[in-house]
Order: sequence, then C-alpha cells, then structure tokens
Amino acid sequence: VAIIGASNSPFNLGRSICDALVASDYSGAVYAVNRKAEPVGKAAGFVTVSDIPAEIDLAVIIVPALHVGKAVRQCGEKGIKNLIIESAGFSEAGDEGRGLQNELSKTAKQYGIRYIGPNCLGVMNAHHRFCCFYGGAPGAFDWVYAKPGTVSYIIQSGGVSSLIVDSFKHDVANINKIISIGNKADLDESDVLDYLAHDNTEVIGIYLENVSRGRKLIESAKRSPKPILVYKVGKTPEGAQAALSHTSGMANNDVIFDAACKQAGIVRLASIGQLHSLPKIFTHMPLLKGRRIAVFSNSGAFGGISADLLLTSGLGLAKLSSSTQEKLRGAGKLYNAVNPVDLGPSVSLKTFLDIYDILLSSDDVDGLLAIPSVWKQVVIDSIIELVKLCKHYDKPAAIYIPNAVSRILEIRTTHSLPVFESIEDAVRALVVSHQYYAYTLKKDKRVLIDAANARGE
Amino acid sequence: VAIIGASNSPFNLGRSICDALVASDYSGAVYAVNRKAEPVGKAAGFVTVSDIPAEIDLAVIIVPALHVGKAVRQCGEKGIKNLIIESAGFSEAGDEGRGLQNELSKTAKQYGIRYIGPNCLGVMNAHHRFCCFYGGAPGAFDWVYAKPGTVSYIIQSGGVSSLIVDSFKHDVANINKIISIGNKADLDESDVLDYLAHDNTEVIGIYLENVSRGRKLIESAKRSPKPILVYKVGKTPEGAQAALSHTSGMANNDVIFDAACKQAGIVRLASIGQLHSLPKIFTHMPLLKGRRIAVFSNSGAFGGISADLLLTSGLGLAKLSSSTQEKLRGAGKLYNAVNPVDLGPSVSLKTFLDIYDILLSSDDVDGLLAIPSVWKQVVIDSIIELVKLCKHYDKPAAIYIPNAVSRILEIRTTHSLPVFESIEDAVRALVVSHQYYAYTLKKDKRVLIDAANARGE
Repeated sequence: VAIIGASNSPFNLGRSICDALVASDYSGAVYAVNRKAEPVGKAAGFVTVSDIPAEIDLAVIIVPALHVGKAVRQCGEKGIKNLIIESAGFSEAGDEGRGLQNELSKTAKQYGIRYIGPNCLGVMNAHHRFCCFYGGAPGAFDWVYAKPGTVSYIIQSGGVSSLIVDSFKHDVANINKIISIGNKADLDESDVLDYLAHDNTEVIGIYLENVSRGRKLIESAKRSPKPILVYKVGKTPEGAQAALSHTSGMANNDVIFDAACKQAGIVRLASIGQLHSLPKIFTHMPLLKGRRIAVFSNSGAFGGISADLLLTSGLGLAKLSSSTQEKLRGAGKLYNAVNPVDLGPSVSLKTFLDIYDILLSSDDVDGLLAIPSVWKQVVIDSIIELVKLCKHYDKPAAIYIPNAVSRILEIRTTHSLPVFESIEDAVRALVVSHQYYAYTLKKDKRVLIDAANARGE
Repeated sequence: VAIIGASNSPFNLGRSICDALVASDYSGAVYAVNRKAEPVGKAAGFVTVSDIPAEIDLAVIIVPALHVGKAVRQCGEKGIKNLIIESAGFSEAGDEGRGLQNELSKTAKQYGIRYIGPNCLGVMNAHHRFCCFYGGAPGAFDWVYAKPGTVSYIIQSGGVSSLIVDSFKHDVANINKIISIGNKADLDESDVLDYLAHDNTEVIGIYLENVSRGRKLIESAKRSPKPILVYKVGKTPEGAQAALSHTSGMANNDVIFDAACKQAGIVRLASIGQLHSLPKIFTHMPLLKGRRIAVFSNSGAFGGISADLLLTSGLGLAKLSSSTQEKLRGAGKLYNAVNPVDLGPSVSLKTFLDIYDILLSSDDVDGLLAIPSVWKQVVIDSIIELVKLCKHYDKPAAIYIPNAVSRILEIRTTHSLPVFESIEDAVRALVVSHQYYAYTLKKDKRVLIDAANARGE
C-alpha cells in the first residue's frame, strides 16, 4: 500500500494512516509518498509512486485537491489499478472542484484505474486489520480487530463512518468492512454491494445522501443474497438540499426511492442509530417467518407496552392454545400464562428455559419478544441458552432487558449477546426480520415461476 | 415511620426498607412491626403499631394481602393517617383480591386514613434521603441523594419505577420524587399531581396503565403550573388488555385519552424511554417559543438528517438573513453559512461561542439544534457556555453529540449538561417544549379572556 501525501509535517493526515497501519500489525508493506522522500514512522518514503521498488496493490491519495490529478496519473504510469482518493475539494465544493473531479475521472479511465472517493474517509477491513481512515489514532480500532465480524457498511459520509464504529463499541462487536464512498465519482454503493454479495459479509448497512444511479442500485440489491439496511437522508426537500452541500450529487424524490427499496427488498431504516442496532437480529437469529409473537417478561408493565408496540407495527400477539398455556403453568408460578406471558419477579434458569422452549416449540408462535430482568447472572445464562434454542427451532427472539442500560452494554460486548437497548428497537428488529423474510419468499417464488415458465409449464 | 411486616426472616422485603433507610441517613425514626417484636437492623421491633411509644407520621404496610386489613385497622386505632400499602394480591389478582381491596378501603375511610397503593413499590424523596421501595440494596440510591433534583415521577408500575431510577444513572441526575401508585384504590395520579403542583418540582413524568377518574385527572393537569409528560400503555386494545392483568383498572379508549391530554396540556410521549430523556429540555432550557430552528453541526451529514427530522416533526429550518450569514462567515471558516450551518471539523471555543451567540441573538431564530463533535474538552466547555447563552437569550438549544455515546453519558452525569443520546430525542425535545409553550399561551389567553368576561368587557 502506498499512502500518497503522508509526511512528517504537523497535522499531516497521511501520517495518521501510516502510523495506524503499523500499529495494527497490518501484514502488507506500507510506503509513504511525499516531496522530501522522507520515511514516515516505519514506512519508507519516496517522491513519487514510480520510485517505489515494488508492485503496489492499492494507493491511498490524500494530497490537496489541485495535486490529485497528477498523483492519479503517476499511479496509472506505475500500473496501479486501485485507488482510494480521500482528498476533499471536488464536486462538493462548487464549480472549480467539479472541474477537478471531471479531470481526474478522465485520467483514471485512461489508465483503467478504478477508485473510491474523492472526499471519503477510506475503508476498513477488520479481518485483515487494515484501515486507511485518516485522522485515527494508532490502536483506535484494536477492539474491532480483536473480534472481526460479519456486518459490513457502505457509508457516504466520513463523520457517519466514525459514528458507526463508535456505536459498535457498545454493541455486539461484529464489524467486517466499512467502505466510505464519499462523492462516488467512480465506484458507488452498487459496485460495493456487488462485491459484498460474495464475501464473508452476512448483513449490509448503507448510509446514503443521494442516489445517482438508481436502476443500477436496484439491480445490485436484487442480486444480493444478503439483507440490506439503508438509512437515507432527504425525506424532505430541506434535508435533501442540506445533504447536497455535503457530498455532491442530485437530490432524489423520496417517494420513488421508497418504492425502489420495496421492489429491491431493501429495508429502509427510520433512524441512523438503527444502522448499528438492527443488524444483530440478522447475524444472531433466524428470520421471522410469521407475525405471531409470544411475549415473555418478568414485568407486567412491559407486557402491555409490548402488545401496543407489536400491534401498531403490523405484527400480532400469538394466541396460545390451552395446551400451551397448561404447559406454561406447569413450568413455574406464572402471573399470567396468556400472552403476554408474565413470570413476575421470580428468576430461575430452569423456569426461564422451560418457558422459552414451550413458546418456541409451539405451532402458535413464529417468534419471541423476551424481556427478562437482569438482576442475576442467571438471566445472562438464560440468554446464552435462548440463542441456541432459537437456532434449534428456527425462530428468532428479540431480547430487551429493562432496568439496566449499563448491564445491557456489558452483556452485548462481553458476551456478544444480541440484546437491544430499548423495547422499541427490539420490536423494530422483529419487523425488519419479517419484512426481509417476506421479500425472500417472493423472490424465491418468482425464481421458481420463472424457471417453470422457461420449462414451458 | 413504621414498616409493618419488616422482620429478620429470609427474603423479607420489609427488612430491605429498614436497612436502606438506616444506610441513607434518613433523619426520622424507623420502627419495625412483626409478630416477634424483633428489632430489624437498627429499627426497634414491636408486635403492633399500638405498641410503638411515639407518634407515627407514616406507616408502610408490606404483609401478605390477607393481613393488610387488620394492619390498616391497627394504624387507624393508633391515629396514623398516612399509609403506603405495598402488598400485592388485591384487585389485580382476581375476585378474592377485589374483595380484600374493598374491605381495606372501607376500613381506611372509617378512620380517615389516606393511602397509596396497594400493589405499589413505594415512594422516594431524594431531598429527604427517604425511600421505602422494597427490595432495594442499602446505598443503592446514594447517587440520587447526592444530587437531588427537580423532576418528579408518578408511576403505576413498580418495575417501571426501577427502570426510571436506573436510566437516570446515565442521565442528568435530577430526581426529586418518585411515587409508585399501584392499584390506586385511594390516592391516584390526580391527587399526586395536585401535591406536586406546589412543591419544589419543575417537571412531572407520569407512567399510566389506566385512568379510572378521567375528569379528575384533566382538572388536576389544568391546575398544574408545571409541564406534565405522560406515557400511557393501551394504545391498542391488546395493550390495554395486557395492562389490565398487571395493575387493576378499566381499559380506556385511547382516542378519548389523547383528546383529553390535548385539552389539559399534557404532553403525551411516544416511548417509555422519553420519560427520562425529555425532562431535561424543561429543567435546563427556556421554552421554545416558535418553530424556526437553527441547526449547527461539525458534520454535514447531520445537517441533512436534522433538516429531515425537523421538517417531518412540524418544526422548520430558520431562514437566516443575509446579515446573519455575513456575521457567521466572519466567525470562522464555515463549510456552510446557510442553515443548517456547517463548521466542518474545526473546533475552537471562540468560534463555537461566536456562532451560538450569532444564531441565538438573531430575530430569525427561535431555538437551536446544536450538534458539535466531542473530540476535545473544548466541546464540553462550549456546551457549558451555551447553556448560559440560552438563558440569556431566552431560547432553548437541544444538544446532541455524534460519535461518542460513552462520552455523552459521562458529560451528562459528571457535568449535569442536557445532552441527548440521539438526534431523534433532541428534535423530539424541541417539539415537546414548543407544544407545552403553545398550551401555556392558550391557557394564559383563556385566563385573560375569562377575567375580561367577568369584568363585563
């Protein structure tokens, strides 16, 4: 990897990339390119990429916008085909910047170069301990690398990338890749989607400020065999206008975008925080195959709140048969065996697990909303077992623990347990799980129908 | 205070109350009442309240439901007029329990006793270091007592009371009183509202599962000179039904409740979490007197997101005059001086404060949505000054800091700064502030009109 623009000047952003790569024990060679050919930390220094006595797989460009064109040309001459252009000052910055962007675009085409950016934060690959985000402190992502995961993000804004990484500190640590696409002059969200369709990613989260190639995005999303969650700015003309001045692009009609998402099976998110809170329902739980939810809690209050949230979100309360209710009464001293099931304040691992087993094995139930209290270690133990039961019965549970925000954060990160921070998030997770399931069903059906038609049936 | 039912048996809940009161240095005398007349910790023990050689201001009853009636009678004979009945097993538990509740109600009337409960958690008064919640560990609320505040809660469910207290650990610590009202056989939310109207409370949060005396609640709310925030279970018939089996009462028509809230100026909350997140916009900030919001951020992404959220929530983006924009450009090197104002990643205390001052002093602006980054101490310093500026200009700011959940929690509790955990919460806070302001305006007008009519004008 060559970092073009890394030097030892004060506030040099390229240096932060070199330092972070060395600190993270990234296995590849790192070269610094600067006018003085000075080494930057452990990275050897060169005046241009052509001086580097090795083949370069990837060049990261972080020089002032006016010099980017020249750097791209030099990369082309060296035979480097992959670039990440992090420099700002292009189409987001007015007419002059737009001119520069067009120029660099032509140069790249001329040499067959594909690139991410300009005006982006860079990319991270947790499995390879690779990150070329500028401005990060060495070691800042050690906790991500320690538990590389299966959730990948495509993010149009640099600031939002940092937010996602930071939020994950308190969530199930499960980051795979983060790709900040910025002005997306060449590679855009569709290209990255196509790439992520075939790697070790399980769920894809996307933050968008505009869509420049809508049909291409829809086709990529349709091809993807993985759930795609999108938060897009610009629901209102004012929001779209504000986004325009941030990363460049055209404002989009939100109604059209919404319809496109439905058609392509993209789950559209209601808040930016859901980009990090919702993926765990996909990575840790089977899909929700019906709308009949059994609610379990230690607190009658949350039974009522759950019922309200489920019904207003389009899901429903499972009607438990009298034999299921009978079994539940046999499992423990219940306050209520009718759904929502209320165990009262008693906590015993066996009772918890018996109830979970009875509910998940019931034909009346498609999924579980579990709201145990967290006073004891037994609740953590029961959640560990619940995750296994869900896999066994191929039904999901959304778990929320009232009364212990700090403990929720600890459980999530220490034990990698998919526990939600609010009951609203837990219900929303069930909704998107079912939404995605319903889409795959239609998709499978369509594939079957198409195949049958082709056979002339 | 007499704790009736406190003994040294294993799992005795009365003992937890005695122990907690002693541990918290509560200034009054605490007596334990149990069959063996045994002392419980530092509380002297007696067989009945009549044996206690002192006047009793308040008795807390926590004995099995069957024995509550007798305990109430003994309190009546002793001349105790104020009871908190925490025992469960009354109208929430079926016909037999309903009978017991009617009986104790008659006994209480006979002796002129007023009581809270049955089936409640108890009450807390942070200023008096008094708490008779059962089951709490000694010292569990020391952090609440260390910074007693001005937000009081009326809570129908015990579990939700604990949740509120726990949530506040990570919020601006500002609890005044918590009153768990349970089955509200005698005193209900209206009575407590009337009481809180004249104490050191600034904002009232209410969690309700049912309303038994609707007109009384509306009248109390109308009389209250303080903002009232309510979360009520039972938006759907299923939710109302589930709540029924928890604390007793009749299900209510949600549409009617909604209309009643509007009439009485009660702010209805969309999620239970808002009970602890939203009061700070009232305790720390002036009311929002118009809909024109200026957005300030270090990240263009959040400018767009803010615009979307403001517009869809009924507020609007302030149109900054060209002279205001001119002043803003003079304050620093801005990415964008048109609202949403984007400073980019630069952070300087002077620039922050100059921008806040320019925006808040502008006649085009009614309130501020401030989204600074939190990389440096300077951001904390700027928020401390921003709170003062808001008081000076009599306009509120809702503050959200992307990219540092853990730091938000720290800033809130360590510095008592009103910083929201999500941008959605920040916008919602501005909405409810304006909603309450609009109500007070109507109320004042109506009072003026009524007065004028009375004078025959």
